[in-house]
Amino acid sequence: MFVTFEGGEGAGKSTQIRLLAAALRERGLTVLMTREPGGSKGAEAVRHVLLSGAAEAYGIRMEAILFAAARSDHVEQVIRPALSKGTVVLCDRFMDSSRVYQGITGNLEQSFIEALERVAVNGVVPDCTIIFDLPAAVGLERARKRSAGPDEQPDRFEKEELQTHEKRREAFLDIAEREPLRCRVVDATKAQEAIAAEVLAIIEPLLPIKAHGRSDAEHIS
Amino acid sequence: MFVTFEGGEGAGKSTQIRLLAAALRERGLTVLMTREPGGSKGAEAVRHVLLSGAAEAYGIRMEAILFAAARSDHVEQVIRPALSKGTVVLCDRFMDSSRVYQGITGNLEQSFIEALERVAVNGVVPDCTIIFDLPAAVGLERARKRSAGPDEQPDRFEKEELQTHEKRREAFLDIAEREPLRCRVVDATKAQEAIAAEVLAIIEPLLPIKAHGRSDAEHIS
Repeated sequence: MFVTFEGGEGAGKSTQIRLLAAALRERGLTVLMTREPGGSKGAEAVRHVLLSGAAEAYGIRMEAILFAAARSDHVEQVIRPALSKGTVVLCDRFMDSSRVYQGITGNLEQSFIEALERVAVNGVVPDCTIIFDLPAAVGLERARKRSAGPDEQPDRFEKEELQTHEKRREAFLDIAEREPLRCRVVDATKAQEAIAAEVLAIIEPLLPIKAHGRSDAEHIS
Repeated sequence: MFVTFEGGEGAGKSTQIRLLAAALRERGLTVLMTREPGGSKGAEAVRHVLLSGAAEAYGIRMEAILFAAARSDHVEQVIRPALSKGTVVLCDRFMDSSRVYQGITGNLEQSFIEALERVAVNGVVPDCTIIFDLPAAVGLERARKRSAGPDEQPDRFEKEELQTHEKRREAFLDIAEREPLRCRVVDATKAQEAIAAEVLAIIEPLLPIKAHGRSDAEHIS
């Protein structure tokens, strides 16, 4: 079971991933939380280069391929082995972020992005993708507040402008519309608890049968 | 006009590229000599990582994607702009080396290598590829002599074994057989001058018309 979480900055993805992981662990499931870019040793090395902006000098195309290199390492070293052991993998950003950030707002051709996606995921496609949707202005404001701490500089993604954020929001919603079986959209302006309940309601029917009522079973045994 | 040069180590590719470049410049053509991995600022940065063996830790798949990142930068920053100005581009190794080194002896699936090739070359396919063929033992011996200088360590590619070299030779010949319009095989055990004449005889009919007898035209004008 492989679930990815997508959406713009400030949508509360990481909080929701933690809440979902806790709920699934209560049901006796083994859960792995991970994130992109990064998530494996090789990918974290590339993440550092990407978030620093050092790869920008070489253009959006090379940057997109470096994202794919990081994703490939993450898939082969971490995600695929975990899935094969029956672990539920929850991943903060995955291939849809590349479609949106490099494809739509990076202006790379769709054929290029598609070929790169095939290379990077190598058959490991999410069973479910939850897209956290909220107005760009709200997300941007939240992200700004979060990164205003004394030690924290806004990273290059958070420096981007409102118009770009709005374009990305539309792009994520487009993906959800084109792939309704894989993608579910959640209103990220709601209260944290309401969102958590909605996410769990989406995921619960997809869980392996052994997980239903597992905590009861544990009490009996 | 885009010509690539392929074959195992010690086949004399770089010497032959220099001789061909000189012959084409005599005919009044603008020639760019370049090489892979490397050939552009971004690609040279990746080349350093690749030849040092530092990327090996992350496995052959990530390494192959890094080669593609380097190639993409080389294509977009150097090769495509040169070709669009009418420059003849002579490149020491290109996509066939990836097919052979990562695909055949790296044991990566053909579909993966093909997708990666599409990403990296992005439509810039060689008009002609000259494959320098010689027995693996001969090439290996030549490469060893060359790298035995006081300051030069054999790089990781030259440390590989004879059997692997033989496998690569067969793989290059397979490519030539499958793509006879693009590829021409040259016997690299011949004398340097004989090889140079053969290479020029392959390239001459493919040159832009203005290059035929160009030096005469310059005398008249």
